[in-house]
Amino acid sequence: MSVWGRNNLKLSIFGESHGAAIGVVIDGLSAGEPIDMEELKAFCARRAPGKSSTSTKRKEADIPQILSGMLNGKTTGAPLCAVIQNSDTHSQDYDNLKTTARPGHADYTAFLRYSGANDVRGSGHFSGRLTAPLVIAGGIAKQLLRHRGIEVGAHILSVQNVKDRAFDAATVTAQELLKIQGKEFPVIDDQSGEMMIQQIEMAAKHLNSLGGVVECCAVGFPAGVGSPMFDGIENILSSILFGIPAVKGVEFGAGFDATRMTGAENNDYYCIRDGEICTETNNHGGILGGISSGMPITMRVAFKPTPSISRTQRTVNFVTKEECELVVKGRHDPCVVPRAVPCVEAAAAFALLSLLV
Amino acid sequence: MSVWGRNNLKLSIFGESHGAAIGVVIDGLSAGEPIDMEELKAFCARRAPGKSSTSTKRKEADIPQILSGMLNGKTTGAPLCAVIQNSDTHSQDYDNLKTTARPGHADYTAFLRYSGANDVRGSGHFSGRLTAPLVIAGGIAKQLLRHRGIEVGAHILSVQNVKDRAFDAATVTAQELLKIQGKEFPVIDDQSGEMMIQQIEMAAKHLNSLGGVVECCAVGFPAGVGSPMFDGIENILSSILFGIPAVKGVEFGAGFDATRMTGAENNDYYCIRDGEICTETNNHGGILGGISSGMPITMRVAFKPTPSISRTQRTVNFVTKEECELVVKGRHDPCVVPRAVPCVEAAAAFALLSLLV
Amino acid sequence: MSVWGRNNLKLSIFGESHGAAIGVVIDGLSAGEPIDMEELKAFCARRAPGKSSTSTKRKEADIPQILSGMLNGKTTGAPLCAVIQNSDTHSQDYDNLKTTARPGHADYTAFLRYSGANDVRGSGHFSGRLTAPLVIAGGIAKQLLRHRGIEVGAHILSVQNVKDRAFDAATVTAQELLKIQGKEFPVIDDQSGEMMIQQIEMAAKHLNSLGGVVECCAVGFPAGVGSPMFDGIENILSSILFGIPAVKGVEFGAGFDATRMTGAENNDYYCIRDGEICTETNNHGGILGGISSGMPITMRVAFKPTPSISRTQRTVNFVTKEECELVVKGRHDPCVVPRAVPCVEAAAAFALLSLLV
Amino acid sequence: MSVWGRNNLKLSIFGESHGAAIGVVIDGLSAGEPIDMEELKAFCARRAPGKSSTSTKRKEADIPQILSGMLNGKTTGAPLCAVIQNSDTHSQDYDNLKTTARPGHADYTAFLRYSGANDVRGSGHFSGRLTAPLVIAGGIAKQLLRHRGIEVGAHILSVQNVKDRAFDAATVTAQELLKIQGKEFPVIDDQSGEMMIQQIEMAAKHLNSLGGVVECCAVGFPAGVGSPMFDGIENILSSILFGIPAVKGVEFGAGFDATRMTGAENNDYYCIRDGEICTETNNHGGILGGISSGMPITMRVAFKPTPSISRTQRTVNFVTKEECELVVKGRHDPCVVPRAVPCVEAAAAFALLSLLV
Repeated sequence: MSVWGRNNLKLSIFGESHGAAIGVVIDGLSAGEPIDMEELKAFCARRAPGKSSTSTKRKEADIPQILSGMLNGKTTGAPLCAVIQNSDTHSQDYDNLKTTARPGHADYTAFLRYSGANDVRGSGHFSGRLTAPLVIAGGIAKQLLRHRGIEVGAHILSVQNVKDRAFDAATVTAQELLKIQGKEFPVIDDQSGEMMIQQIEMAAKHLNSLGGVVECCAVGFPAGVGSPMFDGIENILSSILFGIPAVKGVEFGAGFDATRMTGAENNDYYCIRDGEICTETNNHGGILGGISSGMPITMRVAFKPTPSISRTQRTVNFVTKEECELVVKGRHDPCVVPRAVPCVEAAAAFALLSLLV
Repeated sequence: MSVWGRNNLKLSIFGESHGAAIGVVIDGLSAGEPIDMEELKAFCARRAPGKSSTSTKRKEADIPQILSGMLNGKTTGAPLCAVIQNSDTHSQDYDNLKTTARPGHADYTAFLRYSGANDVRGSGHFSGRLTAPLVIAGGIAKQLLRHRGIEVGAHILSVQNVKDRAFDAATVTAQELLKIQGKEFPVIDDQSGEMMIQQIEMAAKHLNSLGGVVECCAVGFPAGVGSPMFDGIENILSSILFGIPAVKGVEFGAGFDATRMTGAENNDYYCIRDGEICTETNNHGGILGGISSGMPITMRVAFKPTPSISRTQRTVNFVTKEECELVVKGRHDPCVVPRAVPCVEAAAAFALLSLLV
Repeated sequence: MSVWGRNNLKLSIFGESHGAAIGVVIDGLSAGEPIDMEELKAFCARRAPGKSSTSTKRKEADIPQILSGMLNGKTTGAPLCAVIQNSDTHSQDYDNLKTTARPGHADYTAFLRYSGANDVRGSGHFSGRLTAPLVIAGGIAKQLLRHRGIEVGAHILSVQNVKDRAFDAATVTAQELLKIQGKEFPVIDDQSGEMMIQQIEMAAKHLNSLGGVVECCAVGFPAGVGSPMFDGIENILSSILFGIPAVKGVEFGAGFDATRMTGAENNDYYCIRDGEICTETNNHGGILGGISSGMPITMRVAFKPTPSISRTQRTVNFVTKEECELVVKGRHDPCVVPRAVPCVEAAAAFALLSLLV
Repeated sequence: MSVWGRNNLKLSIFGESHGAAIGVVIDGLSAGEPIDMEELKAFCARRAPGKSSTSTKRKEADIPQILSGMLNGKTTGAPLCAVIQNSDTHSQDYDNLKTTARPGHADYTAFLRYSGANDVRGSGHFSGRLTAPLVIAGGIAKQLLRHRGIEVGAHILSVQNVKDRAFDAATVTAQELLKIQGKEFPVIDDQSGEMMIQQIEMAAKHLNSLGGVVECCAVGFPAGVGSPMFDGIENILSSILFGIPAVKGVEFGAGFDATRMTGAENNDYYCIRDGEICTETNNHGGILGGISSGMPITMRVAFKPTPSISRTQRTVNFVTKEECELVVKGRHDPCVVPRAVPCVEAAAAFALLSLLV
């Protein structure tokens, strides 16, 4: 389903890539919260396609239209519905997808799941375009978190083998997070960023694509929030993060690296700084026993390379069950990672807000 | 919360490490399913402590007592409650934990979350011991899955830097999964296993601890199950897997490795084998667009090193807010990974069963 | 919240009476189900205002626009979003409601709940107008139920003290239910209907309003569906029916009348009819132990009289906390019961469909 | 399912009438709340059978044993599990129920639902005995509500046609609610109570049974809690109240009586009393638009007469599909209403508490 939620905060995403519109209903926003629409549009623009060499050539302004839940610039407490009209659709590119499985795509699994009745144009409801409404929801959540002193930000940690510097998990600040959000290409080290762009352009030229890792932090999140076992912050965040198409892995704190440390190395020693309890290091990523420690909450999200590549690929016709070849048409990102950065911020922000309402 | 569930299958885990009993209520099991109690006990025994040099010396038979939901060896369809009495408790080992935070543990976050009213003895409800009821639930789920032709199995993929062979994601069989479940130390390559045991014993000797990775597969899971976005198989599995204490990362298919491949390398080409549609490779881990493809479902779960180490560690008294030193007493696993293998199988099995009822 | 759902079928309603639009997202509809849009519009028209002397003079065509989830007249399996643009709004009628509580309305409770930030125009999200999206969802559910041989229908059982004949709970047929749906004023006995209309017109003339009871049946619902305790059909139906504004009571089968019978009178004796097990009478309303028996499912829903009456009423200014008088302006139904009939059908249909997917 | 919950407060009930034990897991209780076990036992005793001429002769002490979630008389914040061992079981009374449907019971519907694998002894999980764990949960909830200044109480409003005085919905106090809880037979007017007892004894003598209505109030519940549409207080309360076996109707405030009033009669005029906003009357039962108004929350719950009567009744053998006759054996309440009073209090208290956490 495209419904996510816990307790009193829920979202329901709808739409297909080439349908009339896509959008989201958010239920449970607290009332009277001012929403800065310019900032929201700027956040959505960070995800919007068609801006650079690393993204699809489909151009969509992706300006959200608020149908309900806001009055005079503030939330009313009633469900907020935001809609984006689809415009630049080239549906004829997708005719052969009704029967031929694009490798790495959900064409075949969706065919089985929906008995062939699903809308295949532009991947329908499976399109990465459906992250646009998620970004609206997350953009609103980010503003509400900021009202509470919490900043969520992310950057590209790696594209294929090119790495950006990582955040210092123990000391990262809201200022650092905000600084990256102002960048066209969201990395800490711009030189690494340029190498990433070159790498992506090269892959595109070779009709290939790349994946990468997005690192996300939340600073200022209060300590003592969350629960053990199945309602922990990690469970909640991962349950929404895997909703972003192409995500294949999620880790918190030191994550998989922690498996290669000893306990003495991985344990974060407590100390007093400015009269407050904190930890010297932050391998735990701000979460212990599912509950926030007051340290920055850190996560890394793995994105596989875009499956749509314009090379000839071996596949099958899933109606006739015959092997065949396929050249994927349509306009695709050679690497989704740059545009995935605000998506990860959005998902994380929405999930973290749900822990506070 | 310690409730997990979706649709018509839910579980609710209760108990504290040094309380009267721990247990689980499972609601939504289909009726009339035979449960082999000997097999269930054998599965629980795989997790039980006190058996080897790599685990805690606490001895608990951990034999589940079924209070409801079964009659004449079959499920009744009513909620199934299973209880394990606690016996071998050394509560006096934990007195100082009421005020002193063990690094890497939830003592401090739990203190904040529960205003100091939580049961700290043996980590209370945060104890790894709470995976025993999860294993009961998962052991029952495994049997119900087997009735449907599905086998779930796992092994230790790595301990610190010592690696086992990985499953071949495209060809792994139920027989391979079953073979490992019969081993005392669940690895594919027993020589790697011996090196892991040595490594763990060495760490224990140095009052240190190790982490590692568990790899889990489900074979025979039908294609076309799951949903896009937030109700995908990855979302559902990760939401329960992060409920196992010490888990800091979860990945599916090629996971984080996929971020270092190109699209051409990572895409799994479709082919026809024995008249059935499948993929040549299985970097997608049996899941595309949140929906099963019919290929083996594969995941890897990162466990941090046990935080309880008997070295002197720097920490704080969170009541007086003073820095201090701590030597953790009590009996702890120098590495939880071996005992975590059935926990991962259990969590995965329960989540996968929930997709089928 | 305005989210309702269970298992794999959920709806999320949004909008305010005088906002840009109202609508609904339905997630979990099975794919490939043909939707007859003319029939859906006709069903929505049964709820639409402005048609007769018994309803508000606000005129809204209330034609649903489908934004997603349908292709070529069939469901795609993706979330279906339907929107109704608001048009005939007289927002200036509501200025004084920002501070003055209309008796019987949610003005004061909403003010507290939303700290005064809620949209009060036309009652905002509390408006009976929000049943329009519910009717869209229910209209679709009715069609899907009909594909499965199930018919849901309702009629006005009473307006104040004027009573219609009740359905014969044991023998009511789909034909009888369909016959009433074709009527302008949905009663079994048209003479009672005329008396009701007179009664309502009389109340309107005296600046007063009336309530009444809607009786609803589902015929053809399969036996053996539902669960004991909290997931029973009665729990599920009541949890959605109380979502219709002005509902103050819900009963199933003989309901409150059963409390005045003896066990010997109330028990429905089983018998064999046409080779099938059924009951001679149907005081149980087709539900025993939360599970369907195969007999018609019957319920009655109590609607209070419209609180908006154009008489001078005593009330308070909830900002200044001073007593005052109020004459409610705006256009209101002197009796909501006639227009509530499709709302009850819609809610019941959606809830019953949720039990089958 | 036997799981109920919203947001951070959930319960999961398990057990069968003649199984090893029945019980409940409550997850989400706030930590550090003192629980008076004597008071809890006294509350459970109000529901326990075998005390008087109006109840079954089965004797069960029904003393809850707390397995987890409490330490030194206070909640720990971890899931609380309470168990009651079954003792006085006469399972041989139920042998014929495996194939013969008791009129008014769930035997036949359960047989279909669980393919005949359900435990039929003493009605298994469908037994009224399963309200014992509900009463434990509700008894704890009542104490937590009392810590917050809220009192929940109920009385028998009617047995068949014998009526007790109703609470004055606008003025009822915590003292009045507490007074009734001290009575052996919970009515306001003891003379009515004696007539009810006579009526029940008479019915029992004639091998018949009676139903009735329980009225329940909550005093002190804060204003401004709840939500419109599907998360209203009425939706939430009804979704748990219909979980009590034999309940066939639920109404709030004036309920079905409101349908016979005019708007001018039913509207509750606001006024200022002691500086606070309240209503002169309370036909709205303390709930407007799903949200609490600060007035007493009032509800009435309809219980059908006990279906188990020792007369010869016509029925069918649902395995052979032949008509036959049945005399129900076993020990049954000639009227469940007196013992249902604490059950209604319990369900209401748990649901109301869930709105506050």
